[in-house]
Amino acid sequence: MASLGEFDLIAKYFAPLTGPEGLGLLDDAALLLPPDGAELVMTADALVAGVHFRHDDPADLIARKALRVNLSDLAAKGAEPLGYLLTTAWPQNTAEDYIRLFSAGLGVDQVEFNIRLFGGDTVTTSGPTCLSITAVGHVPKGQMIRRKGSGIGDLVYVTGTVGDGALGLDHPEIGALNDRYLLPQPRLAIGRGLRGIASAAMDISDGLIADAGHLASASGVCIEINVDWVPLSRAAQELIDHDSSRLGRALCGGDDYELLFTVPSALPIKNATCIGQVTQGQGVKLLRGGQKVTALELGWGLGFGGWQHRLAT
Amino acid sequence: MASLGEFDLIAKYFAPLTGPEGLGLLDDAALLLPPDGAELVMTADALVAGVHFRHDDPADLIARKALRVNLSDLAAKGAEPLGYLLTTAWPQNTAEDYIRLFSAGLGVDQVEFNIRLFGGDTVTTSGPTCLSITAVGHVPKGQMIRRKGSGIGDLVYVTGTVGDGALGLDHPEIGALNDRYLLPQPRLAIGRGLRGIASAAMDISDGLIADAGHLASASGVCIEINVDWVPLSRAAQELIDHDSSRLGRALCGGDDYELLFTVPSALPIKNATCIGQVTQGQGVKLLRGGQKVTALELGWGLGFGGWQHRLAT
Repeated sequence: MASLGEFDLIAKYFAPLTGPEGLGLLDDAALLLPPDGAELVMTADALVAGVHFRHDDPADLIARKALRVNLSDLAAKGAEPLGYLLTTAWPQNTAEDYIRLFSAGLGVDQVEFNIRLFGGDTVTTSGPTCLSITAVGHVPKGQMIRRKGSGIGDLVYVTGTVGDGALGLDHPEIGALNDRYLLPQPRLAIGRGLRGIASAAMDISDGLIADAGHLASASGVCIEINVDWVPLSRAAQELIDHDSSRLGRALCGGDDYELLFTVPSALPIKNATCIGQVTQGQGVKLLRGGQKVTALELGWGLGFGGWQHRLAT
Repeated sequence: MASLGEFDLIAKYFAPLTGPEGLGLLDDAALLLPPDGAELVMTADALVAGVHFRHDDPADLIARKALRVNLSDLAAKGAEPLGYLLTTAWPQNTAEDYIRLFSAGLGVDQVEFNIRLFGGDTVTTSGPTCLSITAVGHVPKGQMIRRKGSGIGDLVYVTGTVGDGALGLDHPEIGALNDRYLLPQPRLAIGRGLRGIASAAMDISDGLIADAGHLASASGVCIEINVDWVPLSRAAQELIDHDSSRLGRALCGGDDYELLFTVPSALPIKNATCIGQVTQGQGVKLLRGGQKVTALELGWGLGFGGWQHRLAT
């Protein structure tokens, strides 16, 4: 791998990303004194080249996406991120410049999200790049937002716009969409603001409809979504106007990294769009113009099982 | 992958491995209230098929090795393990039985080491299996053993026997050695006993001599090792008696997962063998019959740069 060995790569590109907990990456371990009265929230996601990102995506954006999909999980918990551990398995012929760019991407997002590298490992593989990140955050004791807890009559909200990631994967020529595929926006501030307010929350990574199904299942309720209320970006709307079947792709496609959450109906909510309500029953019910519709009728041709992060190519 | 999807695999094989922190793997996050007055110790290691284990090693032993190399890092810190996050990237044709066996191996070691699965992720790869584990442990505040801190005149100790892992990789037909390659023994109890006693410690994963070099470098000292004092298993000794060059392999080969540590000379030490002392200078000095020798002279033909976990085949 590269012209530098494992230890040199770590010293040159990864040690500068650490804070005091990382001990300069000299100890093969991080030492963390958790904030007083806090509970720690930990989440881990793996990303594989050709599955979760394109082989030729820029290395700095791959790094930032790997970090952000984990931060998005913390956002859904209402957690404040502290740092992360990163293991990387690189193909043996990976150029040093590639790793330099990758680490630079991490550095950019560390500043943006005020986090530090705690530790990790660097190895080689005969296969595609495999990245694994464990993100660590904290919440005041007892305030983590769970995935279960939605009550009958709660309203259902989503942040941002839905479908841009999947449509960006399909249409890399449309910059506004491709950017959303490459660089998710973890909704950390919104997530923190939902502590004590949201009855349940999760981030949308497998597609709005599949993840609404996960939310419904966790609470043993039905989530009713008014398809016409789902917020779409202008670029997504234009694509759908040309080919209405793309609405199904937008709703089922995944890689949104927006927050989906439920709130008792009396509470006012900013920075999110109400898309439906929680009712008795199970699963997800889609409504359009007051009528029940299926994802299939909206153009989703690959079944109703949710996005599995497989690239179209 | 397998006949089950990602969510079914997680529910069937991994959710049963969680404790209260894992929230049944339903939340994409773990919630941990750190023990009172404790600092958390976190470490991450990745393992790739064909690099860190053989493609045809039994799945349960691969799982246990992945866990144990991380626990070994915690042992070197004097930490008590709590649990771990695991991400797995499986080849697409991985059989469900393989994953069942893998998770069963985790279950066996969870009982042995009193730890729980906190969370993780399951994905597929077009390449070889990639495993990544983040292990979480704790130490009383201020008591983590660092890799730096060795003082001039300290004695150098090692637990167990050295070289069995590398010789087991070379000689899978010798059960006692192959077992040591397949299943490291993290020295957690010894590590805990070294709090407040060892001036510095690390686990031996890259080979005794390379890792002694890391220890020396961290403290800015020289580590003098009397080669004749290095503890060898009977099986390793027999191999070396037949071919003395294998001594170099034993000392440089890696995959030992024993603890290497230094202690002020006045303190008595149990459960470990004194192999040398800390002197002024830098790097590692090898002595045999009072004379300075090189690793090359001991039969190490691949240079002095340390083990990189490459399989011989």
